[in-house]
Parts: sequence; structure tokens; C-alpha cells
Amino acid sequence: MKILLVNPNSTASMTETARLAALRVVAPGTEILARTVSTAPVSIEGHADEARAVPGMLEVICAAEAEGARATVLACFDDPGLGAAREVAAGPVIGIAQAAIQVAVTLSARFSIITTLPRSVPIIEDLVDHYGAGRQCRKVRSVDLPVLDLEEHPERAYAKLRDEVLVAAREDGAEAIVLGCAGMAEMCGRLEEETGLPVIDGVVAAVKLAEALAGAGYRTSKVSSYAWPRVKG
Amino acid sequence: MKILLVNPNSTASMTETARLAALRVVAPGTEILARTVSTAPVSIEGHADEARAVPGMLEVICAAEAEGARATVLACFDDPGLGAAREVAAGPVIGIAQAAIQVAVTLSARFSIITTLPRSVPIIEDLVDHYGAGRQCRKVRSVDLPVLDLEEHPERAYAKLRDEVLVAAREDGAEAIVLGCAGMAEMCGRLEEETGLPVIDGVVAAVKLAEALAGAGYRTSKVSSYAWPRVKG
Amino acid sequence: MKILLVNPNSTASMTETARLAALRVVAPGTEILARTVSTAPVSIEGHADEARAVPGMLEVICAAEAEGARATVLACFDDPGLGAAREVAAGPVIGIAQAAIQVAVTLSARFSIITTLPRSVPIIEDLVDHYGAGRQCRKVRSVDLPVLDLEEHPERAYAKLRDEVLVAAREDGAEAIVLGCAGMAEMCGRLEEETGLPVIDGVVAAVKLAEALAGAGYRTSKVSSYAWPRVKG
Amino acid sequence: MKILLVNPNSTASMTETARLAALRVVAPGTEILARTVSTAPVSIEGHADEARAVPGMLEVICAAEAEGARATVLACFDDPGLGAAREVAAGPVIGIAQAAIQVAVTLSARFSIITTLPRSVPIIEDLVDHYGAGRQCRKVRSVDLPVLDLEEHPERAYAKLRDEVLVAAREDGAEAIVLGCAGMAEMCGRLEEETGLPVIDGVVAAVKLAEALAGAGYRTSKVSSYAWPRVKG
Amino acid sequence: MKILLVNPNSTASMTETARLAALRVVAPGTEILARTVSTAPVSIEGHADEARAVPGMLEVICAAEAEGARATVLACFDDPGLGAAREVAAGPVIGIAQAAIQVAVTLSARFSIITTLPRSVPIIEDLVDHYGAGRQCRKVRSVDLPVLDLEEHPERAYAKLRDEVLVAAREDGAEAIVLGCAGMAEMCGRLEEETGLPVIDGVVAAVKLAEALAGAGYRTSKVSSYAWPRVKG
Amino acid sequence: MKILLVNPNSTASMTETARLAALRVVAPGTEILARTVSTAPVSIEGHADEARAVPGMLEVICAAEAEGARATVLACFDDPGLGAAREVAAGPVIGIAQAAIQVAVTLSARFSIITTLPRSVPIIEDLVDHYGAGRQCRKVRSVDLPVLDLEEHPERAYAKLRDEVLVAAREDGAEAIVLGCAGMAEMCGRLEEETGLPVIDGVVAAVKLAEALAGAGYRTSKVSSYAWPRVKG
Repeated sequence: MKILLVNPNSTASMTETARLAALRVVAPGTEILARTVSTAPVSIEGHADEARAVPGMLEVICAAEAEGARATVLACFDDPGLGAAREVAAGPVIGIAQAAIQVAVTLSARFSIITTLPRSVPIIEDLVDHYGAGRQCRKVRSVDLPVLDLEEHPERAYAKLRDEVLVAAREDGAEAIVLGCAGMAEMCGRLEEETGLPVIDGVVAAVKLAEALAGAGYRTSKVSSYAWPRVKG
Repeated sequence: MKILLVNPNSTASMTETARLAALRVVAPGTEILARTVSTAPVSIEGHADEARAVPGMLEVICAAEAEGARATVLACFDDPGLGAAREVAAGPVIGIAQAAIQVAVTLSARFSIITTLPRSVPIIEDLVDHYGAGRQCRKVRSVDLPVLDLEEHPERAYAKLRDEVLVAAREDGAEAIVLGCAGMAEMCGRLEEETGLPVIDGVVAAVKLAEALAGAGYRTSKVSSYAWPRVKG
Repeated sequence: MKILLVNPNSTASMTETARLAALRVVAPGTEILARTVSTAPVSIEGHADEARAVPGMLEVICAAEAEGARATVLACFDDPGLGAAREVAAGPVIGIAQAAIQVAVTLSARFSIITTLPRSVPIIEDLVDHYGAGRQCRKVRSVDLPVLDLEEHPERAYAKLRDEVLVAAREDGAEAIVLGCAGMAEMCGRLEEETGLPVIDGVVAAVKLAEALAGAGYRTSKVSSYAWPRVKG
Repeated sequence: MKILLVNPNSTASMTETARLAALRVVAPGTEILARTVSTAPVSIEGHADEARAVPGMLEVICAAEAEGARATVLACFDDPGLGAAREVAAGPVIGIAQAAIQVAVTLSARFSIITTLPRSVPIIEDLVDHYGAGRQCRKVRSVDLPVLDLEEHPERAYAKLRDEVLVAAREDGAEAIVLGCAGMAEMCGRLEEETGLPVIDGVVAAVKLAEALAGAGYRTSKVSSYAWPRVKG
Repeated sequence: MKILLVNPNSTASMTETARLAALRVVAPGTEILARTVSTAPVSIEGHADEARAVPGMLEVICAAEAEGARATVLACFDDPGLGAAREVAAGPVIGIAQAAIQVAVTLSARFSIITTLPRSVPIIEDLVDHYGAGRQCRKVRSVDLPVLDLEEHPERAYAKLRDEVLVAAREDGAEAIVLGCAGMAEMCGRLEEETGLPVIDGVVAAVKLAEALAGAGYRTSKVSSYAWPRVKG
Repeated sequence: MKILLVNPNSTASMTETARLAALRVVAPGTEILARTVSTAPVSIEGHADEARAVPGMLEVICAAEAEGARATVLACFDDPGLGAAREVAAGPVIGIAQAAIQVAVTLSARFSIITTLPRSVPIIEDLVDHYGAGRQCRKVRSVDLPVLDLEEHPERAYAKLRDEVLVAAREDGAEAIVLGCAGMAEMCGRLEEETGLPVIDGVVAAVKLAEALAGAGYRTSKVSSYAWPRVKG
């Protein structure tokens, strides 16, 4: 089964990080089509970056379904263009924020999310609210680092992340942690080991849900909201 | 991978219906441990039935994990005893209502749920609210039939169900339908064909999510809420 | 008028504490039927304890109504099995959490709740939300003590409780305090005196509401949700 | 025990109706101080009527507490000036809407409210929301009659009310009915008999809760929100 | 004062309709810069259309601010790219949905919205919820017509719209109507006359709010959420 | 265009402060009718003060509309009697809290409010909730000063206010600040300069919105909720 893993920004090394995280958990027979959106900004840090990433992302999705992709994973924690993606796709489309939150509410009663920049906090809070997890999500926290620092200064980023996990455990009563950026995927295991808390990475969560949904034969409803975009004139 | 599929009531034929629905979608290598709670009422129709079913269900879960079950599916749409089950289990525990709702919000923007008895409507509405899908769930409907009529008068039950799906499409603007009772599992495909709407059965949804979560190595957080029950004095 | 005061756990000394708290406030002519659920865990600390307590509690309720009880008070702050109890009872059933919250929103605009173990915090938060007091309840706090410590180490427990009341006043702007465990009933007066805040004990609140509701002739609605459990087959 | 029953409008016959409803349910030893607000409009039908009624109502409350009233019942379903009343009163202040709703959620899982004029519907909906009963209250309905028609054309008013109760049962799935106007108090028993639904009148509910709260010794918290009005310069 | 009025689709005649609506209400001294997004779809009917319109819209905004625009109005009722627009703009950015809703809650206690296609209903419902008007907005309705039919078959569109206004008054208890598409602007006055209900067009509402906000000297906060997009690498 | 600016308390110097704030931003041709409610308390600090201010305020509004006022601004941050004012007025009525919040959500994604006394905090929180800004408003803070201290000890009041703005920025992640008292209007500019945060004063916000709404020809809906008060028998 082919699953599209699309990184909505244009940094190929982040696509590779996500692909490796996915490969560690896929079922036998799953093939990951990892794609970068070459027309997008190098990282998604705010609404304007999102807006500039989405049109190219929609084309990537259409192309991948033409290649046989049965489900799509959007590998950016803002879930940018999720509704639009569902309109252009036949298969299920899974945002990593929505997936990580669905897993978090299954494994715990209260969790916190840790993201990169403070400006992403309200964006993620609004997603949490939109996904109906306002009661279960104790707090959206930030380590105050740009996305690309995760790659450029991985040890400093890791240290700040680990400290924030411990603060979330102590102050929020968090029973699990959700990593609020696709670029944090490979720190997941080490964080879990060093903090003792379950740590959920959205890429892993979304890839497994994509396998599950495609495996069950589910397809995006084409009734009303996610119907194919109307062909004009 | 072994997955426990526990029917919280004591009607073995309903367990078998759920098991067959599960077998149609499991991945290669998944083994379904289908269990009936022999000490429970014959059907779960209200809070008191739930209460009387749960203690036996907890024992079934402990026994199945001792046999190697990696995840648990609760096959009753009230998700009875979900918190208690998560306390006694090491692996993820998936209620069919929570699973079906998670799938429904991924495939559609608005859905309706159809259950058996009117008295179950407020119970399911409260679950929807608890799971944060109040905006996406248009309406919880009932066909006003006891649970066991699904087995005893399947054609009449099917006809009422199909009619209600069509009403939900027309009046609620439902873009997908969730079946609000484990006993409806085998009507799912036919409903989809005859109504043209995506129809989501919780057993299928939950079994696939259970495979996904166990496959990713997720386990129930033992921090605070779902920690093992305290051993007293 | 007979009122059932059922302690859902099996520790008779806690039943006695609750009974004494009730006796201090009952109207002339009220008779308290204090009952312990002998088949239940010794304390209710989490969902599994609740689940194991409820079936026996339902039998106690049926027996007490047969003896003439006109209303029932559930003396555990998790309000375990409240819906089930309402199904099997003819008279009103009052959970001490729901009662204390109803009193708290009448006497104050903002209150905090203080319970025993951290694992009970999310359970009580969900009750607060379910009862619609999310805006008025500032915070659910815990003193991080097992329930039975209230009896075994009463002075230490009292000191922690008093300190937490003062923190709630200072940090939460709490205008009243709700005690989040039936076992705290007898500390209520002293806390009020030493902190200057109104302190609401759920047993007292619930017993008075039970007298009021039974005195007005109210009975549980048998339409739909709380109809008698269906008799099967 | 003296309890103030204040009718915030200036129609003495409505005060008498409320007083008689109260007398049917009071405990031995309860004395009802029934008071009319002579400076108020003849009926409360909208926000401006409320605003013009409240200042006089506050004086009535102060006078009644000076006479020894231990608790106050506001006998208008808009609960006008409830916060202000709590500021000027030492004893508990109970609005009939808040009381009726607290009783309704104890006796049923879903209820509807029926009031007089359509313009009162959004006012009551906002109260329901403020009191946190948005999920339990199915619908606020009106019979489209001015308040005083309840006295002037009682049979016509009764017939419209009874029909609306039946519509609420059928269309809303209401398990109980709350009467949304103090002037409907004496129709309560007959409605219950003729429709088979529990019908809750706010005056009865509030008087019994007032007895309960005063009987337990509860007083309005004077910390912050409901502190005595500040004495200015 | 220059105000940008940007039509996010590429149909110049719709821009002209909006411009004329604006000109009827502007204050002396206000200059409307009406702009069409030439790279966008011909109409915005769903999430994918929105996504494809926004990048070009952001460029239009930057260009207009360079020309001296002091505030921006987004003339599409989905408020597409509102957050992104606020990031790239110095002046206030006003979506016509947010503006119309702000006006509606000031003039009435309950209103309904009427849009074009059914697929836009959930999009607008989510906006209403995001803007916190869920209680005041009774219902989002559609006349089931494509956007461009407003121009191509104006009489048929008008008739369907007028009928839907009357249904909203009768069934929803709507006290005001919000037009849910920029293309309906010129039908506003006639609808008001023929139905007797206040009818709010978002273009008019937003242009007046834009004048007000710019006139008061308000500018978009550049702290955190709407800070300028980060310049990468 | 005449706009009524009514100060609901009886302190004329506060009316003058508000008038001067308004004059700094009005459009050419706007005339401010500044009125004091002579029968009201000297300041509005709690519900009882509000209740005593409103009847006189309604008369001021009626008189000003008779003089030709086209819109009304209520210059007290509790928005006292807003519904009643809308019933007696033909033109739009704008509360300074509602206006400031509407501006705040347009300029920022997250803001905090700073008011005078702690007892006003829950009142304002309830307004925020009623206006649907619960997600955007991070926190309602108080400087713990009586309203009249703003005039009597302006430097001390200013210093406390500035400190609280900085705390809101640091701890709440506030992107803008709303001043929670009409008496703070003239400190607005200095606060903005010294803290670097956008600071929104409700008087300015409301006066500009009043100009906008009256300028567009909007009038209060007289359908249902805000219909003229009923004339009684």
C-alpha cells in the first residue's frame, strides 16, 4: 500500500527526517512516497507561510494519488490546507496534529503540546479547539526556537525540549506529551526515555492511522464539504 | 499481533457478528481474541446495564493481556467503562464510539449517528461532547428498536436504519453516517451501497485503530489518570 | 422522611463520618439510612474502583427504596454510577459532587475544588464540565494524599487541606471552596473558621437537597434516559 | 425560618399565586414573607422591564433580611438582578430559573423550558447557557402570550401550555418540562397529570432549595463578587 | 483615507459589485482601492478555491499598503487567509464575515446567515464558532446556487434568497439576516424592504469598520501571532 | 452626526475624561453628546451599582435620541443594561467592553484585559464569555484599585497599570491589551509607548464603531429581543 507523506515546506532534509520516522513503524507492504513541496517556504512559521505552501501541496497530492497513493499524511503540525487537501484527494488525508491528538486522547486523559516558536502557539491552540480536545489538552508550550534550529542545533534544541517536557509534567499534570513540529520526530524516543512520559510524534501517529484507514477501505466523503472542487465555467 | 475484541454484553452471537466484521478488515498477522462478558446483561441499553457489564469486562481484559493481547477494542457503542479499562490495561484501549468518531471527523466535516433505542441518544450525545465532536456531529438519531431486534428481525431493522440514513442526509446535511451499535456491523456495506453515503461501523474503525496503535508501539500512559488501580491496605 | 446515604466504598468508618455530618444538618423528622457497599473497594480512587463499586451500590439503593427511602445521596465525590442509580431509583438521586457544585454556584461566582489524589483531578474536572460549571470552577486541586489518610493521619491531612484552601484563595481568586471527597466532611467547619472562606462539604449539601427534593414530591423522570432498566428476554 | 419570596413586578395577584404555590410545599416552621415590588412594571417582559424592577427589589430584600429572612427567592424566571441581590443579601439568594434548572438536571437528562413571549426566549437561553445547562436543555419554547394573560385568560393559556408540553415531548425528546414564568405555578399539577411528564415550577423548586440552603446554614460568600456593595466616599 | 477592498476571486464584475456597495456608504474622504486577484479561481466555493486564491491576495495587500492603503477589507464571506493577511499587513484587516457578525450581534440577539452553496455551510459554521457567535447565530442556511448565478440569474437568485430570509424569520426566530456571500451585496436593500428584517451585507459592514479602525489609528499587533512573516535563511 | 456618550455613573469628571478621549478620534461632523447619569452611584463597582445606574441611563438615552442622537455609547466597561438600552433605543447601542473586544480580536489573536477591582474580574469574564471571546482573551486582570483612584491618584494608578501590562505580555502571551475601565482612557497612549504593546481603550473603540454603524444606516433590530418595551394595560 502506497502512502503519501508530504512535507509542506521546501526543506528536503526535513522530508527525510519524517520519512525515516515513518519507516521505523510502517507495516510490511507499506510504501512511503515522501515528497517535498518545492514551491513552498523553507519552513512553516505562521499563517502566511502556510498559505504559500498549500497550492503546491495540493498538486503533490493529486500527483501522488495518480501514482497510486491510498492515503495522505500532511507532515506539518499546523495541518495546513487540510480541508483543501481533502477536497482534492480520494483517499483519507491525515494531518499530523489531528493524528497526534487522536492518539493522545486515547492513551491519556490530559496531555500538553510542545512546539517551536511562540507565534505557533495560538495557531495550535485553535487547532486543538477545532478538533475538540480543549479539555484534554492542558497547555500548548513553545521552546522559542525557529523550526530549522531543530536541524542546525539539534543538541541545544533537544535540551530545551526535554526541559519543557519536564515542566509540562510538573506544572500541567501532563500524562503524555505531543511534539508540535514534524522536525522533532527523531527526538521522540530519547525524550521518552529521559523523561519517563509517553511522547507522541505526529508523523508516526499519522502514518499508522493512514495505514489503518486505507486498510479498512475508507475514502474521503465526497458529499458536500469535501466534494471535488467545482469545475468553473 | 493479538487484539482483544470484547463484547461487554453476554450475547455470544453479537460477539460473533463483531468478530466477523473485524476479520473482514484485519491485516495479515492480526489475531482477534473475541470474548463475551458472561456475567453481563444480554444487551447494553442504558446506564444500569453498562454498570453491570463493566466489572466482568475488566477481568476479561486482564486475562486477554495475560494471553498476549496488545490492544483492546470495546465493542459496545456506549464505550462503557472506558476509563476503568485503560487503568487495568497496559496496551491501548479503543472504544468503538471514540474510534468511529475519530474516523468520521477525518473523512467528513459533518456526520450523524444512528443508534437503537431513544434512551441511548443522550448517552451518546454526552460521549460526542466528551470526545469534542459536538460541532461535527449533526445529530444522534434512533430507530427505536431494542438491540436484540437487530438479530431477531434483521430485515425490519435494516429497513428502518436505511430510512434513517436517508433522513440524516436530507435533514442534517450529514456527509457520513456512524452506526451507533456494535450489532449493526454487518449492515454497513449494504447501507453504503443503497444510500450512497459513507457509513462507518465502530467495530471496523476500532480494530484498525487498535492495529495501528499497537503497531506503533503505543501503550496507555500510566501517569496519573490511567495509572494501575491502587493496591489498598 | 427516610433518606438513603450510601457510601459506595466498603469502609464503614467513612460511612459513619458521612452519617454524622448529615445528622448535624437534617431537618426534624428526617431519618438517615446510612449504608456501606460491602462488595466495593475500601476506597474509590480512580475509574476501576468506581466500576467495581457501582453494581453493589445499585442493590443497596433498591433495598433502601423498598424500606421507604424517599431520596438517595451518593457519598463519593466522583458521583460514581449516578445515571445508573437514577435508572433503578424512583426518588431523586443526588451525587455529592453535583450537589456541592449547585450550592457553590448559588453562594459564589467563582470556587475551587480540593480533592485527595492527583489521579482524581481529571475525573472531577470532567464532572465539573458535565455539570456545566466550567466557568465558575476556577481549579480542581489535590493535596496528594490517599483517601484513607484522611482517617489515618487526620492532622497531617487537615494541615495540607488548609494550606491548599489558602492557595486557592490567593491564586485562583476562589470565593468559596468545595471539598472534593466525602471523607473530608468533618474538617469543614474548622477549615471555614481558620481560612475565612465558605467551605462546602458535598455530604451536607446533598442531604439538604435530598430533603428539599423529596419534600417537594419530586421523583426521577421515568421518560427515556432514566426509565427503569429494560427487562430482557 | 423566614424566607423572602419577592415578586419583582408590581402585580400583587401574581405575588399571591406564587405565595400559594410556596405554601403547598413548605416544611413545618417555614414562614413565607411574600413581597411585591411596588415601583416595578406590572410584568417583566424584556430587559428594560427587568432593569426598572431591580432597584426596588434590592430594597425589598434588605428590608426582609432586617425582618429576619434567612434566604431569598426571586420569583421571576428571568432571574433579574440576581448578582445584585446576592451583593446586598447575607443569606442565599435563589432565582427561580436557576433553581428549576438545578432540579431539572437532577431528575432528567434532557428537558425543555416553556415561557410566555418569544422575546423572552433568547433571555432564557442565555440564562441556560450561563448556568451551564446548554447540553441538558433541549429547547426554550414560548406559547406567545403576554404574562398577564396567564391570569386574565387562564383556560386559553393552559390549553396552549399543555399543547406545547406535548410538542416538547414529541419533538425535543424532553424528559421533563420547566415552566418559564412564575405566573404558571398553579398550572403545574394539572399539566403533569394531563401530559404524563414531570413538570417543574421554579417557585416550588426555589422555595425548597431556599429552605435547604438556609437550613444548612449556608450564607452568600462575601469574598469578592458578592461582597457588600462598596460604600463610596 | 485609502481602503483596500480586495475581491479574492478573479471575477472583475464581482469586484465592481462590491465596490459599488462600498461607495454607497463611505465617509467623505474615503477612497476605495478595489482590487481583483487575477491569479485566483473565478469564484470561491470550498477550501481548495480558498487555498488557491490566498497567495495572490497577499501580494495585492502588500502592493496596496505600498500605495498608502490604511486598512484592508477581504470581500469573500469565507474570510480566506485572514490570519495570513494580518501577518503581511500593517493596517487592520477586516474579513466580511467577521465584520458582518460583529454588526449582527450589536443590532440583534439572534441572527441567521444565508449563503450560496451547501458546501459552504460547514465552512461558515466553523467561522461563526471561531468568532464566538455560536449562541447568537441561529442557523447557517444556503440557497443552493453557485456563486456566479448571483450575477447570471439575478432574479431567480433574488427570489430564492428572499424566500430563505422569510424561512429564517419564521423557523429560526432570526432577528436579523447576514448575507453570506459578497456577491449578494446589491440585493441587500430590496431584501430589507420586502421582508421587514434588518439585512446585513458584509462588504458594507467591513468597509465601515475599516474606516473606523483606521480612523482611530489602530494597527495590526505585530506581537507574536500577526508579526511580520519571518525572513528565512 | 450626533452620538450619545453616556457615563452610567454620576461622576461628571469621568464623563469629561471620556468625552475628551472621544474628541481625539471623532470624524469631522461628529458631535458628541456627553451625558452623566445623575441618579446613579458615583462609580460602578459591582452588580448592585450597575442595577442602580441603569434606570436613569435609559432615560438619558431616550432623551438623547429625541435630541437627534444616531447612536449610543455606554461608557462603563461592565456594559450595564446593554440589552435594556437596545430595547429603548432606535439607533445602535455600543457597550465599551463589546467594542473593545471586537477591536481586540481584529488586531490580535490573543489579548488580556486589565480592570480596577478584583470583584469586577468575574463580571468581565462573564461578558467575555457572552461575547464569545473566551479563546482569544487570555486573562482578565485587576490592579486592585477603586475606580475613583484613577482620578485621585493618577500616577500610582498609572504605575500599577503599566506593571500589569508587562505581566500580561510576559505571562499571558498577550498580543494586545484592553483597558477594563472607562476611567483609564487617557492613560492609553502613554501605556502603548512605554510598553510597546497595542492598548485598546473601550471609549475610543466604541465611539468609532458608533460612527461606523450609524454612518452605514444601521439601526437596532426591533424584531423580538430588542423590540420596544411592551406598553402595559
